[in-house]
Amino acid sequence: MNDNIKKTIDFDTILHRVRETKPLIHNITNYVTVNDCANILLACGASPIMADDIDEVEEITAMCGGLNINIGTLNHNSVQSMLAAGKKANELGRMIVLDPVGAGASKLRTETALRLIDEIKFDVIRGNISEIKTLASGAGAGHTKGVDADISDKVTEENLKEAVAFAEQFSRKTGAVIAVTGAIDIVACGTEACCIRNGHPMMSSITGTGCQLSAMTAAFITANRECVMEAAAAAVIAMGVCGETAFDRLGRLDGNATYRNYIIDAVYRLTAEDLKRGADYEMR
Amino acid sequence: MNDNIKKTIDFDTILHRVRETKPLIHNITNYVTVNDCANILLACGASPIMADDIDEVEEITAMCGGLNINIGTLNHNSVQSMLAAGKKANELGRMIVLDPVGAGASKLRTETALRLIDEIKFDVIRGNISEIKTLASGAGAGHTKGVDADISDKVTEENLKEAVAFAEQFSRKTGAVIAVTGAIDIVACGTEACCIRNGHPMMSSITGTGCQLSAMTAAFITANRECVMEAAAAAVIAMGVCGETAFDRLGRLDGNATYRNYIIDAVYRLTAEDLKRGADYEMR
Amino acid sequence: MNDNIKKTIDFDTILHRVRETKPLIHNITNYVTVNDCANILLACGASPIMADDIDEVEEITAMCGGLNINIGTLNHNSVQSMLAAGKKANELGRMIVLDPVGAGASKLRTETALRLIDEIKFDVIRGNISEIKTLASGAGAGHTKGVDADISDKVTEENLKEAVAFAEQFSRKTGAVIAVTGAIDIVACGTEACCIRNGHPMMSSITGTGCQLSAMTAAFITANRECVMEAAAAAVIAMGVCGETAFDRLGRLDGNATYRNYIIDAVYRLTAEDLKRGADYEMR
Repeated sequence: MNDNIKKTIDFDTILHRVRETKPLIHNITNYVTVNDCANILLACGASPIMADDIDEVEEITAMCGGLNINIGTLNHNSVQSMLAAGKKANELGRMIVLDPVGAGASKLRTETALRLIDEIKFDVIRGNISEIKTLASGAGAGHTKGVDADISDKVTEENLKEAVAFAEQFSRKTGAVIAVTGAIDIVACGTEACCIRNGHPMMSSITGTGCQLSAMTAAFITANRECVMEAAAAAVIAMGVCGETAFDRLGRLDGNATYRNYIIDAVYRLTAEDLKRGADYEMR
Repeated sequence: MNDNIKKTIDFDTILHRVRETKPLIHNITNYVTVNDCANILLACGASPIMADDIDEVEEITAMCGGLNINIGTLNHNSVQSMLAAGKKANELGRMIVLDPVGAGASKLRTETALRLIDEIKFDVIRGNISEIKTLASGAGAGHTKGVDADISDKVTEENLKEAVAFAEQFSRKTGAVIAVTGAIDIVACGTEACCIRNGHPMMSSITGTGCQLSAMTAAFITANRECVMEAAAAAVIAMGVCGETAFDRLGRLDGNATYRNYIIDAVYRLTAEDLKRGADYEMR
Repeated sequence: MNDNIKKTIDFDTILHRVRETKPLIHNITNYVTVNDCANILLACGASPIMADDIDEVEEITAMCGGLNINIGTLNHNSVQSMLAAGKKANELGRMIVLDPVGAGASKLRTETALRLIDEIKFDVIRGNISEIKTLASGAGAGHTKGVDADISDKVTEENLKEAVAFAEQFSRKTGAVIAVTGAIDIVACGTEACCIRNGHPMMSSITGTGCQLSAMTAAFITANRECVMEAAAAAVIAMGVCGETAFDRLGRLDGNATYRNYIIDAVYRLTAEDLKRGADYEMR
């Protein structure tokens, strides 16, 4: 008897709800990968709206089911809009995802991300291990390194148990489902975690697969409010399975540009059967 | 004898002029679909310039043949630039297209779009039926609902006659050719209208086909100043025909990302013969 | 005995170093082609970071090996960030490329580009002949036309000698390697120049091949600091060779959108052998 028997993700229901309810997602995101975020939202069955002016973000959030905040090319204006939209989303019970792109790379990003998780309750925070560590060490801890001192910058089979405990602890602190993505992905709430081994290394040769995943996660959780952790894990698995499907489609002349297109294409064609067949995960 | 005999669009001349004169189009547009707008302009034979700083927009408009204003991700700064560029375009007799993306979705968008049509004379206004209705009900009418009260949010065979009358009336009010795009497209001036049934439903699964069409419309009318309505209709038909051509090219693994590329590819390869063979329209 | 024997570019070493050192490149660039710049950097083996807020650009530049400044959609805020990042790069000895997109098209662009080359020491300045002429005539010359009076707006076999002398002179004035790209490309330092005849005319039907080349040049020179001129020439040749490879791959239905993807794909698959076989250049 293995962990998969203990609990399995209901891909049929989760994907069906995304496609049936077509959640409208408000994105305040970076200008590097924004087009891909819009197209992957459409690919999975959702609808994107991008708006970042302080004078309209609250209205736009109010008319949407979910909000995706990505600090990839933040600036003074957009930070104010992120805060306003996030608070409105909390007030109205909209689902919110944070993608703390580059937290740790500059004081502005780190402080913005910390302020966001301080003032807004997120449903999911998705980042790589470095970004999540930056937030975990800073949040409520005077920006000192602490909890993460012994988590390395890469999740491996060797430190997986430790990384899972770290993600669960950060989830308890923030109240958000934590998605740490990398070679092995961890999606954790306060009491359990899902470890995922889908995806392909070539995905890191495309800009914005992380941003796209965050956008898609917003769609998945908005359509599946009653099972946020499962829906977030399903989004991570979907991105990974599509990364594998797209890789298998590459010819010998294809590179990262075609791969980018094929991943979005794969999301467009994705079925619950593909997920059930391709998913490589375990609950812990 | 049918309507098509009454009047036919001269695709040969219209497309030839775009490719021969290579109009330079100034775009003040959103950052979501801007790259696709630039590439579709190049695909049809035009040249794009993007510039939105208040200190240069008038100069850039002056050196271009046409201006395309799209409020997709407007902000306080870009709104000022739109107004300045639009006024300069009017002063110099440059052609102008407005794409009121999301008018009706937020007060900022609605008011900006209304202010733009109030202060600037546009040659073409292109949007979906909801956006155009928002403008028509607000413009010069104290923002009350009125003219559009009985126009539904989707143009169908059943309400087509009514929708055409609505578009013609809004054209008389604004002096602009009105392009309402959807499953059935309407391109109307004050006295006549063209109803178009090209395109494919899958086009709505790509972000920015509307934005791309607005950019291409700016190119088509700039190269064909003496027949703006025909040129605008030709642009709408061209986008629809290319959407069909691109759809026919899709393989079973292709999704919306590949479809996006194939549509732009089809515009690049488009001939007047393709338009004559594929066009499905009638003058009313 | 021809010029190629006098000096040949060491493609093996140059390309190998890019892929081995994976230089991190900070881009302050336009929102039209930013996604393509990110993906071509990844394709060649480098890593992109985009950041333009004044509060973080110095930190981001400091953590990167190189900086790529592109004024394609400049605004008041980003100009300040370009100046701050450029000065920090100079202070720390980071490599810097300037792409003066549209210099000459507006006063704002011309003055910004002139101010940048006045206050910052660039390693490479890459533009088309019109942009470079604008800078050369304005820099330190009270904006009068002078040095370039007799250089036409297109580099041809007929005016090549003159154009080379012009580029070398501008290089001596700025201390930067000058890359003038067009049908014939010139890469010049103060004492010698490389004339390159790679590429394909269809590259001008894609938005941003110039921007992409500037980004890739930043990666090439950052990984090859001790031979900046050779590395810049290698980047120009690489873009041209990939433009040819990608063109050969096009089918009869493919247009500029697919061509864009295939060029980036070709960079991803590029080998030193491809460069040695395909390079068409001569040292002067």
